[in-house]
Amino acid sequence: MHGRKMPATLRFMLASRRSELLGLEDLARTCELVTRISQLVHALQKERGYSNIYLSGNAAHQRQQLDVLSLEAEALEREVRLDLDRIDLDAVSTADKTRLFTRIAYALHSLDELPALRRRIREHAISMQDATATLVRLIGGLLAVVFEAADTAADPHITRCLVALFNFMQGKELAGQERALGVVGFASGYFRADMLERLEHLLEGQERCFATFSRFASPAAQALWQALCASETNINACRLRDIARRTSPGAAVEPQLCELWFELHTHRIDAMKQVETRLEQDLLQQCRYSIERIRKDLQSHRKLLDGIADMHAAAEQAKLFSVQASDLDAPPPDGMTAMVARSTLELLLTQSVRLQGLNEELREARQALDERKQVERAKQQLMRQQGFSEGEAYSWLRQAAMNQGLRLEEVAQRLLALAQPAERAPARTLGQRSRH
Amino acid sequence: MHGRKMPATLRFMLASRRSELLGLEDLARTCELVTRISQLVHALQKERGYSNIYLSGNAAHQRQQLDVLSLEAEALEREVRLDLDRIDLDAVSTADKTRLFTRIAYALHSLDELPALRRRIREHAISMQDATATLVRLIGGLLAVVFEAADTAADPHITRCLVALFNFMQGKELAGQERALGVVGFASGYFRADMLERLEHLLEGQERCFATFSRFASPAAQALWQALCASETNINACRLRDIARRTSPGAAVEPQLCELWFELHTHRIDAMKQVETRLEQDLLQQCRYSIERIRKDLQSHRKLLDGIADMHAAAEQAKLFSVQASDLDAPPPDGMTAMVARSTLELLLTQSVRLQGLNEELREARQALDERKQVERAKQQLMRQQGFSEGEAYSWLRQAAMNQGLRLEEVAQRLLALAQPAERAPARTLGQRSRH
Repeated sequence: MHGRKMPATLRFMLASRRSELLGLEDLARTCELVTRISQLVHALQKERGYSNIYLSGNAAHQRQQLDVLSLEAEALEREVRLDLDRIDLDAVSTADKTRLFTRIAYALHSLDELPALRRRIREHAISMQDATATLVRLIGGLLAVVFEAADTAADPHITRCLVALFNFMQGKELAGQERALGVVGFASGYFRADMLERLEHLLEGQERCFATFSRFASPAAQALWQALCASETNINACRLRDIARRTSPGAAVEPQLCELWFELHTHRIDAMKQVETRLEQDLLQQCRYSIERIRKDLQSHRKLLDGIADMHAAAEQAKLFSVQASDLDAPPPDGMTAMVARSTLELLLTQSVRLQGLNEELREARQALDERKQVERAKQQLMRQQGFSEGEAYSWLRQAAMNQGLRLEEVAQRLLALAQPAERAPARTLGQRSRH
Repeated sequence: MHGRKMPATLRFMLASRRSELLGLEDLARTCELVTRISQLVHALQKERGYSNIYLSGNAAHQRQQLDVLSLEAEALEREVRLDLDRIDLDAVSTADKTRLFTRIAYALHSLDELPALRRRIREHAISMQDATATLVRLIGGLLAVVFEAADTAADPHITRCLVALFNFMQGKELAGQERALGVVGFASGYFRADMLERLEHLLEGQERCFATFSRFASPAAQALWQALCASETNINACRLRDIARRTSPGAAVEPQLCELWFELHTHRIDAMKQVETRLEQDLLQQCRYSIERIRKDLQSHRKLLDGIADMHAAAEQAKLFSVQASDLDAPPPDGMTAMVARSTLELLLTQSVRLQGLNEELREARQALDERKQVERAKQQLMRQQGFSEGEAYSWLRQAAMNQGLRLEEVAQRLLALAQPAERAPARTLGQRSRH
């Protein structure tokens, strides 16, 4: 390394590449955390499903099976916590972790509730609905960490992998909620109208998530998904869903269907786990690829810069020698200086073009996340302004989209645009602050 | 500080706030750099203007005046370089500096050309057009640093100040280019058709920049700008512009108008400098406000977290004491634990809501930059695909906007959307890589 002796231009070029590599290595660690979170989420989904079975019955073997699932989830939670412990929080000095860390804190806080929840489930001191709701919230908090990781990743290829994984996890989570809903419905023999509406929402949500997953996933992951969709398990699960749709207080079915429903949907979700595992592998592989490429780039870049720095030093020395012969203010522009300048400029332009390309790819990959955020914000706005429940807000958006022949995201975007003040009062902040 | 003893949830909450503060302090340093760059740009604009005067004449007093301006610019360049030297490049470990550093490297590289350019100007070894073009490129490189700073700032209020400053600097730079163009035109007695077209582009560009500046600037800066627009200098500068528009090879004017044009436009630009200074002050003031607020927040946050940590420790201890009396697996959920959980959750929700709000404000402030990027990209696309010059590409966009009754940004957006492949081949990268 030339260190201080390197001209400032080259030092900043090198620092730019170096910051890219270090950022990528940090991102890779976040991705490892994400894959562990994905495994924990799967275990919690299983535990949630079986908790409902347990709460609806109470055989001794069910308690045993539930304990096994709890132990599995606990082991995975410990791994996530170990991963988090390894993050050197004091070393973080940039704003880009602000959101991620808040999400992690929220997820940890929810995880802290788990032991109490498990006790209450075993004591039958909580309803199926409340136990499900608590675990849905907890898993939602974990998914939010994955979302944030995707939203702050600076490498477009890794972002694409994270977007695929997040959407698949979200889709699988909705499938898990569908399973839980089905257990409640079949256990009572029929589905109330609000439960059927919720079922449709969960199905639509799954469709949207898996469509986005398909846009961003690797061919291998897509092939696994296609096979799952065509599988007998999936077809049977769909049939049972149709039976659920036809139930009513006057047309109840045998509560025994509950176990069949649970089994079929558990198979379906376990098959999803295979796709998810593939996506996790894709993600980690992409991290390795990206790091390897940037590391090689950095090495060759450093060599080039060292070469240019040497030329620069030689040119400076040549200038020193020519001082006696010419005016100090006007050394003749010699070939070497020009060559240094040209090589530097070439490297700079290559880097600029590359960064611009990366930025555009990143923008594209993040769009799927932005759209999701907008739908969420539009829902929140409707809930706040119209007093809608979350389900009602979603139905409203869906209806508006159908009526206007627009995508859900487009309706959300228009709704939010309507609510925004046409123009902000200029620099309100400064004006306000000075009065304090 | 409780350090390790603090529960993980609280540690991440604290780290989130801390990362926000450190990021802000770093941003404040970048903003200081930006204000120094703004001053250097102003000096270079002056030097550029006077270089043209010098190149069109050659009186001894002009050389002297030019030397004074060069020395001023050199002094400011040294300050910028000192600021850059103060950045600890080895301490940077995140990807968020990648683009900024590449921009800085590019700007430094252009600054390295300055001594040679100055010599060639003094030796009359370069045309007015070429000297102007070199300095336009150099100033463009410096403005790109300001743009990047605005685009990567994570505080919406500071982003708004940076957007106002960048647009004002860009508008002022176009005013400087207008001055240079006028010197060339009046020196030869008339403006060729292409020069008149360029003049119109420069005027339109100024309008767009100053409109965006007005949306984001403080009332004080806006008032200064309004006064400037209504000033006699500005009105006279406009009159001379009208004279320029009426010239042609057959209707030449006295070359003496050149000095008057230069003088009036120099007054105009110097008055702009006052607005710019105000914007710089606004920016630095906003940095101080934001840091002060976050620092206070962090302090009270830390106190709250310490309080919660103490409660947590007490609750843990209470649990230990109750072990003998009850089952280890099922300590009774006591009031203290519940209180800790509630306080933590409250803080977490406040923080989440605040971050979401910040993010939305940031999105809004950055939109002005995004639109600018899209216009640039659309121009580049037209130049690449249609073989247009930059001026032609801009005219094409402007014409399309007028024909369709759209804003320039909207036309750019549609053009880019057309060129984008409808859907990317899924996870192309992974597929490609594995073949390597």
